[in-house]
Amino acid sequence: MSRIHATYLIETPYQPSEAAEAIANEQSSGTFVEISAETDNLAERHGARVEEVTEQETVDEPTLPGADAPSEASDVAEYTRATVELSYPMENVGTSLPNLLTMVAGNLFVLKELSGVRLVDLAIPEAFATEQPGPQFGIDGTREIVDVRDRPIIGTIIKPSVGLSPEETADTVETLVDAGVDFIKDDELLANPPYSRVEERVEAVMDVINRHEEETGETVMYACNVTGDVDEMLRRHDIVTEAGGNCLMVSLRSIGLAGVKRLRKESDLPIHGHRNGWGALSRCPLLGFSYEAWQKFWRLAGVDHLHVSGIRSKFSESDESVISSAMECQTPIASEKPILPVFSSGQWADQVQDTYEALGNTDLMYLAGGGILGHPDGPRAGVAHLRQAWDAAMQEIPLEEYAETHEELQTAIEHYGNA
Amino acid sequence: MSRIHATYLIETPYQPSEAAEAIANEQSSGTFVEISAETDNLAERHGARVEEVTEQETVDEPTLPGADAPSEASDVAEYTRATVELSYPMENVGTSLPNLLTMVAGNLFVLKELSGVRLVDLAIPEAFATEQPGPQFGIDGTREIVDVRDRPIIGTIIKPSVGLSPEETADTVETLVDAGVDFIKDDELLANPPYSRVEERVEAVMDVINRHEEETGETVMYACNVTGDVDEMLRRHDIVTEAGGNCLMVSLRSIGLAGVKRLRKESDLPIHGHRNGWGALSRCPLLGFSYEAWQKFWRLAGVDHLHVSGIRSKFSESDESVISSAMECQTPIASEKPILPVFSSGQWADQVQDTYEALGNTDLMYLAGGGILGHPDGPRAGVAHLRQAWDAAMQEIPLEEYAETHEELQTAIEHYGNA
Repeated sequence: MSRIHATYLIETPYQPSEAAEAIANEQSSGTFVEISAETDNLAERHGARVEEVTEQETVDEPTLPGADAPSEASDVAEYTRATVELSYPMENVGTSLPNLLTMVAGNLFVLKELSGVRLVDLAIPEAFATEQPGPQFGIDGTREIVDVRDRPIIGTIIKPSVGLSPEETADTVETLVDAGVDFIKDDELLANPPYSRVEERVEAVMDVINRHEEETGETVMYACNVTGDVDEMLRRHDIVTEAGGNCLMVSLRSIGLAGVKRLRKESDLPIHGHRNGWGALSRCPLLGFSYEAWQKFWRLAGVDHLHVSGIRSKFSESDESVISSAMECQTPIASEKPILPVFSSGQWADQVQDTYEALGNTDLMYLAGGGILGHPDGPRAGVAHLRQAWDAAMQEIPLEEYAETHEELQTAIEHYGNA
Repeated sequence: MSRIHATYLIETPYQPSEAAEAIANEQSSGTFVEISAETDNLAERHGARVEEVTEQETVDEPTLPGADAPSEASDVAEYTRATVELSYPMENVGTSLPNLLTMVAGNLFVLKELSGVRLVDLAIPEAFATEQPGPQFGIDGTREIVDVRDRPIIGTIIKPSVGLSPEETADTVETLVDAGVDFIKDDELLANPPYSRVEERVEAVMDVINRHEEETGETVMYACNVTGDVDEMLRRHDIVTEAGGNCLMVSLRSIGLAGVKRLRKESDLPIHGHRNGWGALSRCPLLGFSYEAWQKFWRLAGVDHLHVSGIRSKFSESDESVISSAMECQTPIASEKPILPVFSSGQWADQVQDTYEALGNTDLMYLAGGGILGHPDGPRAGVAHLRQAWDAAMQEIPLEEYAETHEELQTAIEHYGNA
């Protein structure tokens, strides 16, 4: 029978193996006293199992509050960190993605045996993965729509994030498509406010994009933020599709795994997954989820693009972590399609070379807001400078050298480099 | 125009007021350089506003990694903690609950200006709250179904959590209803596995409960865990209703706000909200959400019961925090119904008196798993001992004294007290 393997980074005042058993117990058949119906046979068939415990360093102070001393000790002298791998019978959840989340990442976060607990990896059997919708478009399907093959998809976020009417949004989009972007998205803060209803916004925006396509033959992807109630999202999917739209954006946490799956079921369009709120689950290194583990849920639910922040971004994540996240997105889960990591936040030419070198490929979206709209010579120069930076990286020419013969890049370096 | 007020506990290497402005900027119209379309007028109408900054202590080390020193300083000497209140224009999200979450608790968790950030309170205007479904039953509606008025609703979780067939589950339920419980729930780990499909389980269980009702006139509430994809949940709602069922349980995070709202829209039954995974959002005191803020989203989405752990539980939460959570559930949001806090985890007679004294009322569910099934004289004695403990508390008689004349309570004290 298939088992699902979950790996946790833990910190504990107990022996790490005891703490691991506490997780296994809590997440399968545990209660606080032995009860008669809980036979050995049942435990054997349905119990979680500790597969491996790898001790790491000890620390003097607990990372998280609420851990209890083992009953034999009055004071805790040290807390041991360890990586522990558990396996769970797939039979306990069948092929239900929402319930998998409860099994591998439920109550365990509040166990007293732990002063730190983070789900760092998840190995999902083929038998589970193949029953999930998974991404419909992934990297290749998205590339096909915008007809961009051998370089990153260059995109932007409509700014200001909030406050523009549908007409003002369309005007901004006109500037951006004229500037040469491949991809445009709504900000996560703009969904369906009274001053910019999805119906009106998508119609105004797609008018511009469709006209641009007729004139130039170039398809620009517009990720319309359809986040909302289930029925609203499904209605907006239809509105977007009818207007000739080609991408749906959702705030993942807000709609949940069930919401993403429902939308994916109906959708003929790529789903652009926004991870706002992710920091609450990840920023404490001894709590929550690693991106490696977390992203698997959303990909199996059906997203095609996932945000990963960016190198030297305005956010707190380390560059190593950003790159590792992006590489995860590009790695298939079982036979599901790999997806596009979306780089964003404070991005301009500066981070291109390092991003390319770390990844070794261009299977990504590279989004810049201020990096395009804020270019001193205008948005067209903003897009040009990003394309030039990627050309330089792919040709292994130092950025400064390439800038000598590429004005937009030169101006960007002078402008943003001193900002 | 209505504004939504959110209060955060922050820690920052900056001046707290600067850090608060960074949140306001990120969560309304921010990007990393000034851009032309962002007029003062728009910022005035759509910008978030810092309402109040209350400095607290300083610390030498950052709680969370990834915070940057202010540019003028090379090293950070200290980090200041502060409570900051921001207000957001309701117009930015309209009345969308999923998008409210993004606005008040989105990217801000990863701001470099912060080494700690937790949403600790949320004041939602009447104009927003009245547009939400809210709880359909709440405290009074739930009490009416089970006809329990002047004491807590005593309940239990079917154990072992996993592994029982529908028939074995029904057998356990028979024992429990005979024992006198008011409420029975599935464990959050048991939803719809191959060995216990909801259709079969609910039919088997409701057979027992309906027969019990015919025989005794007593209605026992069964919270069937219907967590799953949206369509699955709606189908299960119908199955549960047709079988005469009277409560639906869902794992909140797994189905998201959109999933809860969709179920609530269809549902004729109370929704029992399970908060598994909540610890990942709350256990670091300087990250994530306070329960006060977090529970408001789910209540507005429509849950009638919400878990709050329990006093002296097997989990990490402090007793003060548990009580404060419970009191929040009992406090109405605008004109919405208050809901039942669900006490659970390692509960038996021991915690009753303190729980009652802290709350001053019995508007709660008091769940015991091992505390009922593990009683040496059987489940009937298990339920009896809990009822006795609550009788003692409400009559202000010390537990030990009451136990002298109540055998089940006496046995429980001897048994669990020494476990």
